[in-house]
Amino acid sequence: MRENSIIRWLAQLAQPHPAEMQLGIGDDAAVFAFAKQVVFTTDLICDGTHFRLNECTARQIGHKAIAVNLSDIAAMAARPVAAFVSLLLPRDVAPNFCTELMSSLVSTANEYGCVVAGGDTNTWNGGLVINVAVVGETTAAGPLLRSGAQPGDALLVTGALGGSLQGHHLAFSPRIREAIQLREHYQIHAGMDLSDGLAMDLRRLCDASLCGAELDAAALPLSEAVIAAESDPSKRIQRALGDGEDFELLLAVPQEEAERILRDQPLSIPITRIGRCLLEKEVWLVSRGSRASMPEVGYEHGSQADDR
Amino acid sequence: MRENSIIRWLAQLAQPHPAEMQLGIGDDAAVFAFAKQVVFTTDLICDGTHFRLNECTARQIGHKAIAVNLSDIAAMAARPVAAFVSLLLPRDVAPNFCTELMSSLVSTANEYGCVVAGGDTNTWNGGLVINVAVVGETTAAGPLLRSGAQPGDALLVTGALGGSLQGHHLAFSPRIREAIQLREHYQIHAGMDLSDGLAMDLRRLCDASLCGAELDAAALPLSEAVIAAESDPSKRIQRALGDGEDFELLLAVPQEEAERILRDQPLSIPITRIGRCLLEKEVWLVSRGSRASMPEVGYEHGSQADDR
Repeated sequence: MRENSIIRWLAQLAQPHPAEMQLGIGDDAAVFAFAKQVVFTTDLICDGTHFRLNECTARQIGHKAIAVNLSDIAAMAARPVAAFVSLLLPRDVAPNFCTELMSSLVSTANEYGCVVAGGDTNTWNGGLVINVAVVGETTAAGPLLRSGAQPGDALLVTGALGGSLQGHHLAFSPRIREAIQLREHYQIHAGMDLSDGLAMDLRRLCDASLCGAELDAAALPLSEAVIAAESDPSKRIQRALGDGEDFELLLAVPQEEAERILRDQPLSIPITRIGRCLLEKEVWLVSRGSRASMPEVGYEHGSQADDR
Repeated sequence: MRENSIIRWLAQLAQPHPAEMQLGIGDDAAVFAFAKQVVFTTDLICDGTHFRLNECTARQIGHKAIAVNLSDIAAMAARPVAAFVSLLLPRDVAPNFCTELMSSLVSTANEYGCVVAGGDTNTWNGGLVINVAVVGETTAAGPLLRSGAQPGDALLVTGALGGSLQGHHLAFSPRIREAIQLREHYQIHAGMDLSDGLAMDLRRLCDASLCGAELDAAALPLSEAVIAAESDPSKRIQRALGDGEDFELLLAVPQEEAERILRDQPLSIPITRIGRCLLEKEVWLVSRGSRASMPEVGYEHGSQADDR
């Protein structure tokens, strides 16, 4: 299945039909009418950088292509509405590769209420590339931004950190429901998703909020993959800070509200307090009672670094 | 200039700030509030298929990457608001290549009132790939669709057709202003942009409108490139029908309204009547008084064919 036939295949799939979508596949553009604020993001993944074609399945690649985008929508505490997929296929892929990749992509999108509403498919002599763009709608609480963290805010993180390359980066769940649930029931000052590693991403949140922060190394929730792979405590911390592709939420929350969230533990995944925001614009790591500048670690896909 | 630095470079550019955009570059997603219907499109171009890196300039590639998307927005008679750019760069491109490509892309976007509001940049061992996604807003007249053409409607086309590879495909002007102007002042039943060649695209318009059509071969407006390259009249027609990448508008208009448009000639480019819509769902080419099925020609980039 290739080129035009992918669009036809998509058009006849039973997918959710979001109320905001007035026209899906089949014209020069899709048409929407939104009642609330709209968020928009795009992310590209390619062979050798974000996955290795010979080491993973079409289904894993399809899942990752949409999930990295849904994670950006979650970062805004918004609800995904529609996704647009550009596929660039190597000439020699197996005939059912594309169907499997797209089935998985559509399935993950649909799981979060998002319809695949269009796309563009090409074949070429190069490697596999998938670009996804997602449009979402905010809840009544509006978009959650990176800016807005206040000195004194508690820093919270969902789930566990580090060791993403041991499988998590191909199989993670974007925190859409979690972000919306927290946004609706608690006062959250700022938030983002962790894509390039806590050390690098926290600095971005601080830059956007014009504040600093200190992290408590001993408080970082370590993934089972990191615990299994490393016995040295300081190496575990380094990996939690720098491995990247955790796709968990980092939130800045007023202290009293943080106490309430930690007591309630309203999600099916743990929420952990890992530090606090500071007035001085430095980012510190506190370990065994001593404070040092946050190490310069972070996942940039070799040379990759994206901001959106 | 690479990766993160491209985003920083973009963030400090003086670009238009559309009233609908509430937050541009710098967070996990851009934020908008729209009063009217929203259109959404995405298109990917890559080396060897849509351009040849060793035969054209960075500025030409940047222009084409955004212009093919703006042409889809024009096809809906909408106004582009914001573009999101995913760049996949070969490791060996010259240092200023990326700046030139992006400057050109931003400049063309801005020319049509569209801001580049985000993106994603990666470097890899493969060829150059650029994906652009554009969000636009319809005018008060609503989106212009492919469906809605009626038997008896006149078929009109803007500009001239064929010979796009002789330079036009890297330098064309998306028909944004033309589409909006026609949409606002005349009754248009259906429309689309011509990306894969009139023969193939007309069939798509007919399919969407559940009608057929006949084209008058002698009426087709031939580009100077086709006239210069071909002396054989029938080869000229073939190229006007099948070369593709004209990026002109194809419109279905009630007969009397068509007379008015042809008399007014309201655009700075010619509008030509090239045929009419039929009740029977066949697409015909009328040439020297005899009617034959539309030839199966069309530009699919070797093996490319996109529907959005």
